[in-house]
Amino acid sequence: MKVLALLGSTRKNGNSEYLAKKILEGTDHTLVHLADKHIEPIVDLRHDEGGFSRVDDDYEELVELIEEHDVLLFATPLYWYGMSGPMKNFFDRWSQYLRDERFNLKEELTKKKAYVVISGGSSANIKGLPLVQQFNYIFEFVNMEFADYMIGAGVKPGEVRSDLAALEKAEHWNALFR
Amino acid sequence: MKVLALLGSTRKNGNSEYLAKKILEGTDHTLVHLADKHIEPIVDLRHDEGGFSRVDDDYEELVELIEEHDVLLFATPLYWYGMSGPMKNFFDRWSQYLRDERFNLKEELTKKKAYVVISGGSSANIKGLPLVQQFNYIFEFVNMEFADYMIGAGVKPGEVRSDLAALEKAEHWNALFR
Amino acid sequence: MKVLALLGSTRKNGNSEYLAKKILEGTDHTLVHLADKHIEPIVDLRHDEGGFSRVDDDYEELVELIEEHDVLLFATPLYWYGMSGPMKNFFDRWSQYLRDERFNLKEELTKKKAYVVISGGSSANIKGLPLVQQFNYIFEFVNMEFADYMIGAGVKPGEVRSDLAALEKAEHWNALFR
Amino acid sequence: MKVLALLGSTRKNGNSEYLAKKILEGTDHTLVHLADKHIEPIVDLRHDEGGFSRVDDDYEELVELIEEHDVLLFATPLYWYGMSGPMKNFFDRWSQYLRDERFNLKEELTKKKAYVVISGGSSANIKGLPLVQQFNYIFEFVNMEFADYMIGAGVKPGEVRSDLAALEKAEHWNALFR
Repeated sequence: MKVLALLGSTRKNGNSEYLAKKILEGTDHTLVHLADKHIEPIVDLRHDEGGFSRVDDDYEELVELIEEHDVLLFATPLYWYGMSGPMKNFFDRWSQYLRDERFNLKEELTKKKAYVVISGGSSANIKGLPLVQQFNYIFEFVNMEFADYMIGAGVKPGEVRSDLAALEKAEHWNALFR
Repeated sequence: MKVLALLGSTRKNGNSEYLAKKILEGTDHTLVHLADKHIEPIVDLRHDEGGFSRVDDDYEELVELIEEHDVLLFATPLYWYGMSGPMKNFFDRWSQYLRDERFNLKEELTKKKAYVVISGGSSANIKGLPLVQQFNYIFEFVNMEFADYMIGAGVKPGEVRSDLAALEKAEHWNALFR
Repeated sequence: MKVLALLGSTRKNGNSEYLAKKILEGTDHTLVHLADKHIEPIVDLRHDEGGFSRVDDDYEELVELIEEHDVLLFATPLYWYGMSGPMKNFFDRWSQYLRDERFNLKEELTKKKAYVVISGGSSANIKGLPLVQQFNYIFEFVNMEFADYMIGAGVKPGEVRSDLAALEKAEHWNALFR
Repeated sequence: MKVLALLGSTRKNGNSEYLAKKILEGTDHTLVHLADKHIEPIVDLRHDEGGFSRVDDDYEELVELIEEHDVLLFATPLYWYGMSGPMKNFFDRWSQYLRDERFNLKEELTKKKAYVVISGGSSANIKGLPLVQQFNYIFEFVNMEFADYMIGAGVKPGEVRSDLAALEKAEHWNALFR
């Protein structure tokens, strides 16, 4: 099973990344820091006659990576009670590439399994729930299985190491992905 | 009462913009298309010794606009069941400017009233609710009154003109803001 | 169009009832105070060999009323951020009657339209959202259209008369039901 | 630490009860099947001149049990995407007893910790989230710590034994409560 981990954090070595790396240990995977990629916001041309235009950034590389992997692991800190801005721009652009006939994204997504890691402060296990619901609607829309999610407790780098329930869940997922 | 309308859409003349403009008719207001501004994603340096660095983009102009207005009207289409990416990057950067002593953002926000306009397809009045909950947590965090929200039905440009309940609510807000 | 209004409040002349009656003015309807009916809690025998047993209460009369009407209007005050206990017992018993071959409830529900009125304090327009989401899941499960909902502001009897947006929505629904 | 487990299921030996008993093994606890108690629905007399009247049922016994324990463990199957009707009636009656001067419920609740167990089908980890949010608002209202929650997967009696993450969490809670 090939896992594509898409990290939303805008710092390195944060808590969502820590959990993602625990989950990925010894697996066949690709890890991408979305903030390291050039991802333009969507320009919404769904109802424009000419349709979408080609964008000069790194997005198509990500579409190809999605198509090549079986599992999509989305890991984001809870920024303002949502996914990070760079991850949001990543999803917004699906609106363009689901319609781009050079790719097969729409059909490919239905074959993937999605896993979600959210990290945040002590209230994240409640205040992160709207984000879990949002991910659910996203995956439903593209008909992709939402296999599981976890909300880890950690704000300062490394803090999530004290969240035993999150670490155990990371081990279970790791066993599934190996 | 001075109203600052922050539009999240990445197309012009969409449904959330239509509602926003109805709400603003005849009021003292400033309208900003966030997608027209250069807004870098946050670089999360909250726990870095050096703290945040100055960013060369249009953000500080927005901070100043916030400080000068009484009401913040956030208008966004429902993109992938959340606010648009450009609007998300806008909020993410609050993490930086709440700590920037050149501004008084933290205290100023507590004096504003927030109104939210969301537009989306026929299921948006349900599938937009996690976004309403997210806005609520955001405004709670900065101790700003969440005065009201509306979810208008419209996908193709202009469709929201058939949503009478949304138009009526727009009129009520307009009366409040005049 | 025949409307069946099921009221969840355990007092008479409260705010959800006030809205319900505005909605029903001049329509062909039946109004039931659930708290006036004897409704036993479900006894969950779904996985019991013998299945469910007949219950000596008023429930079957409600099943018949549902079958005879086109629109179901659920009106409940927000009690502890949910529907009232009597209304919850009403829904729980669906688990029994969806399987009772003397009735045709499962198929009949798919033909109805559901409308929901919630009344509560000033925070109900946010803290009532989980209840809206619950209603949505309920109606999805039985494949019934969730046509619309409103959240009216009112705690003391009569207070909701100041909620103009709720009153306007009540008028729109009234026009639809006439 | 004394744990009061309040079970909402209306069958014996279901999945939420199974998890509750795992959590309680070897602890100092009291376990109550709410469906075995006579609990009348609230009669909402908050705004009635005479106030609430004494009710002839088992409720006061439950108020006393709450006051005598340190931890409240609420365990309910997901019935129609909410807590069971009997548990809802249990909460609704708080409105009466928070005002009853013969008890000290309002202050006592602020000293307790709340834990929540929800069991349901495979979609419960998503469709149970509005219920988690409802519990959060309930506990916030009475200023009681919402220590943790779990959503176990199981519909037929015993099925939850296959949900390893739920069983592990049960063990952690058990260790805390011993």
